[in-house]
Amino acid sequence: MSKNLLVASTSTVYGSGYLEYLLPTLKDHFYQIKEVIFIPYARPGGVSYDDYTAIAQKAFQKINLTVVGLHTFSDPIQALENAQGIFTGGGNTFELVNQLYKTNVLPTLRQVLFNGTPYLGTSAGSNICGLTMQTSNDMPIVYPSSFKTLGLLPFNINPHYLDPIQGDTHMGETRETRIKEFHVYNHIPVIGLREGSWLEVKDEKIELKGELEARIFESTKEPYEVASGSILNF
Amino acid sequence: MSKNLLVASTSTVYGSGYLEYLLPTLKDHFYQIKEVIFIPYARPGGVSYDDYTAIAQKAFQKINLTVVGLHTFSDPIQALENAQGIFTGGGNTFELVNQLYKTNVLPTLRQVLFNGTPYLGTSAGSNICGLTMQTSNDMPIVYPSSFKTLGLLPFNINPHYLDPIQGDTHMGETRETRIKEFHVYNHIPVIGLREGSWLEVKDEKIELKGELEARIFESTKEPYEVASGSILNF
Repeated sequence: MSKNLLVASTSTVYGSGYLEYLLPTLKDHFYQIKEVIFIPYARPGGVSYDDYTAIAQKAFQKINLTVVGLHTFSDPIQALENAQGIFTGGGNTFELVNQLYKTNVLPTLRQVLFNGTPYLGTSAGSNICGLTMQTSNDMPIVYPSSFKTLGLLPFNINPHYLDPIQGDTHMGETRETRIKEFHVYNHIPVIGLREGSWLEVKDEKIELKGELEARIFESTKEPYEVASGSILNF
Repeated sequence: MSKNLLVASTSTVYGSGYLEYLLPTLKDHFYQIKEVIFIPYARPGGVSYDDYTAIAQKAFQKINLTVVGLHTFSDPIQALENAQGIFTGGGNTFELVNQLYKTNVLPTLRQVLFNGTPYLGTSAGSNICGLTMQTSNDMPIVYPSSFKTLGLLPFNINPHYLDPIQGDTHMGETRETRIKEFHVYNHIPVIGLREGSWLEVKDEKIELKGELEARIFESTKEPYEVASGSILNF
């Protein structure tokens, strides 16, 4: 067994339903299984775990998959060990990572994903596939015990990557400036994944999917673009 | 002696030079002194402490004030104790707070500001005046030993506050959504300070200055606007 991951920039593209653009891909990705365990810890907008799980359930039932929230298991570690598939939804990455540490599921999640359990991450759920959550866009609303994440990828993800807006009068930092600041203190490459892009990870092969290019930030180079279909290899 | 602070959303408004819009206010604020100690730890864009201090120096010399970087003192704690005035510039709040803890200057900075040393903060330098840095917009590029900040204000600041953009197709969270998520876990009020706004703090009186309204987020209410000239009182 080996890694089998989809690492998506966003759950939802503009003008479309939750996970809708990914459903054909998810059908293939999860074709051998009946049930996906959903990690709802990121709580977008502070939604409850039950309500968030219901949103995921509604999307997955279109491809005949059952979704069960990880929070409903009395032994979440065992639930992950037995999972047929796993999906971590977006929201606030600080709270997601905080809960992954608090509930002590992080080592098990890492182990089963290295061992081949098929996985989908969107946004915060993709951030945690990188080496650290230090290129998250989220607000630090809680203080997690570490910024280290799953290290399933040899780089970090910046989801919802946003190009500088021409003629913008706002003086806050652009996304590119923020990632460059990250590289003052860190040498981890960063993949700026635009909304609608995802990475397909089969063992050590990492391919950019979706229609858009991705922007790559390496600490010693100028940022550059890679086309859809590229294999990411540093 | 009592608190005497300017807490500004940004150093720079669009189409204007560094601190330019604030210079008349700064002239009054620092009228009794000759020298300001500059805390350059936030390093916007990863600029060096020396280069960042030179930028501050260039602005302050227009009002006949000398700027000295805190990093140039062999004993920064003593330097803060003896400071005539203090300015903390913007950049990355995580790195600013990280360095304030590492260099062990935070308790002294807090004490002298409570005791009346005139202070200017912009952006990250304003964030640290609140109870925590948990409503920063910045990327978590380093892991500070705590998110707790100076607590000079009975609330948190969200600098560079940005209204939702009409017709935006980007699916990342709006600033308002992020602050609402903060209130799922915290009850600290948050002041959304738009660029060009600042708070003038004289002892316990906190007044909104500049031309714009500010947006107030209390955990139990719908967000609301307050006009320039309002006294902030919770």
